[in-house]
Amino acid sequence: MTLPDSVVVGIDVGGTNTLIGFVDAEANILCRKSLSTKEYFNPQDFVIEVVRIIHYFFDENKNFKLKGIGIGAPNGNIHHGTIDFAPNLEWKGIIPLVELFAQYFETEIILTNDANAAALGEKIYGGAKAMDDFIFITLGTGVGSGIVSNGKLVYGYQGFAGELGHVIVVKDGRKCACGRKGCLEAYCSAGGLVKTYKELLSETVIAESDKEFSAQMVYEKAKTGDIYAQKAFLQTADLLGFALANFVAFSNPQAIFLFGGLAKAADLMLEPIKEAMENNLLQIYKGKVQLLCSSLPETDAAILGAAALIGN
Amino acid sequence: MTLPDSVVVGIDVGGTNTLIGFVDAEANILCRKSLSTKEYFNPQDFVIEVVRIIHYFFDENKNFKLKGIGIGAPNGNIHHGTIDFAPNLEWKGIIPLVELFAQYFETEIILTNDANAAALGEKIYGGAKAMDDFIFITLGTGVGSGIVSNGKLVYGYQGFAGELGHVIVVKDGRKCACGRKGCLEAYCSAGGLVKTYKELLSETVIAESDKEFSAQMVYEKAKTGDIYAQKAFLQTADLLGFALANFVAFSNPQAIFLFGGLAKAADLMLEPIKEAMENNLLQIYKGKVQLLCSSLPETDAAILGAAALIGN
Repeated sequence: MTLPDSVVVGIDVGGTNTLIGFVDAEANILCRKSLSTKEYFNPQDFVIEVVRIIHYFFDENKNFKLKGIGIGAPNGNIHHGTIDFAPNLEWKGIIPLVELFAQYFETEIILTNDANAAALGEKIYGGAKAMDDFIFITLGTGVGSGIVSNGKLVYGYQGFAGELGHVIVVKDGRKCACGRKGCLEAYCSAGGLVKTYKELLSETVIAESDKEFSAQMVYEKAKTGDIYAQKAFLQTADLLGFALANFVAFSNPQAIFLFGGLAKAADLMLEPIKEAMENNLLQIYKGKVQLLCSSLPETDAAILGAAALIGN
Repeated sequence: MTLPDSVVVGIDVGGTNTLIGFVDAEANILCRKSLSTKEYFNPQDFVIEVVRIIHYFFDENKNFKLKGIGIGAPNGNIHHGTIDFAPNLEWKGIIPLVELFAQYFETEIILTNDANAAALGEKIYGGAKAMDDFIFITLGTGVGSGIVSNGKLVYGYQGFAGELGHVIVVKDGRKCACGRKGCLEAYCSAGGLVKTYKELLSETVIAESDKEFSAQMVYEKAKTGDIYAQKAFLQTADLLGFALANFVAFSNPQAIFLFGGLAKAADLMLEPIKEAMENNLLQIYKGKVQLLCSSLPETDAAILGAAALIGN
């Protein structure tokens, strides 16, 4: 009889969906599950469902044993194991997620910012393996980031470093989910792109601008020649490139990685973002910062990054 | 006969003046010298004059021996020992300052960004002794910064992290010495404050607005009730506070230290900066970031920080 192999559960709590992966010692994802975060109005019910999924896996796979649970979540606080005031989740205030999970498992449970976890995934398994200084930007329901400097994740004093989606890029600009105005997220998230598209439509094609669109639909329209959709992508890229140039002045990274839903539109966005970034960079940085798409599949980076919090 | 005590030379190259300090093993500054950086149109002549000052000190003080030279300079590149494209110096392009000094001394010579050196001074000798995450902002001829994260200076891939004076805060804004537009430095340096004051004057007191003013003069006018001078300080503080709130979203510091000429106007600036910063902070950071004046005398922080590069 052999000893059971240890498995880490990596959980990526997203504004829309939550991904759960069971990761072995060789970083293979043995099994992936997902659930709709938005369907759970309170975090207790959410935790009960995730616990059910975890128990089911280990009941079905007696040759594996749980080594730990790593969680990436918006506004995840590594110091306290809590989600604090996450603007893109239904759960308001401070959510003691680690404590809620700890009622069910006697194992190590670590929670951090979802983008930090994904950045860790890029560093350990992806394109940033050889890099000590890089910025990882997630472009999805929200805009998040993980910053690696001197080879280490920048957590900051409270554990909330890298909220680059909430850098204000347009003074008194568009309202953001965080309650303030003009945040990068209000423009360069999936919803921000759609809003820009609808604003552009409303200037001329008023009837169309009342319709509901997804970022995916705007992408497809842009690919089939819709000039408003194309312009929406260019405006989004322009503002993101401008913001990235400012971020470079902060930590002088070797590369910036783009990740998540909008990063999939790299064919429309990457070159214009790069152009806008270069145009706005201080002389000493020009031509020195690589702009790259994450080399990890979207689901895996977040799961592997979350799992990497435990170390397998 | 006792062995000579080792002394480190700490040099702070500023846009206006250069400070030279002779620092003993207990961090006492035994002797301070200064010279006008602007008077030296080429760096060779500047180095010759600094070398003369250093030789004179050791000739006069035979009981001391030179242990090393630490230099803080605008756009100082720790990796290459060069000053690269410093917008506030007369010397253009890449200046191999360490190489120039090395012709005269067989000792360790290290050069970094002037603000990085001063931040190191604050960490080792000042108010940041117990802090692992802070931002140090210099408000003088230029606006510079040193960022400490996870207890270490953030140098970045090229060694040019922390150019926060060249974060663009007003799109298509005021022209900056770096050649771009809207940089923080164009508004919140000594010259930026004067420009704001003159702009405010030009709206009503047109005759006055053609006169030459220094930041010190604007300060004195504000203290004696000149409403334009007061408004200039408030506008400067407002923009700086806004910028600081964005910086917090990057590295989530425990404190931000203000240092240099304009920081001396703390009685006019500190509260309005804090108010603007708090108003613009993301919810999770509100009330959590200390805004402090550097606890080191201006000359000493830069000299001690530069000397600390060598380690005594």
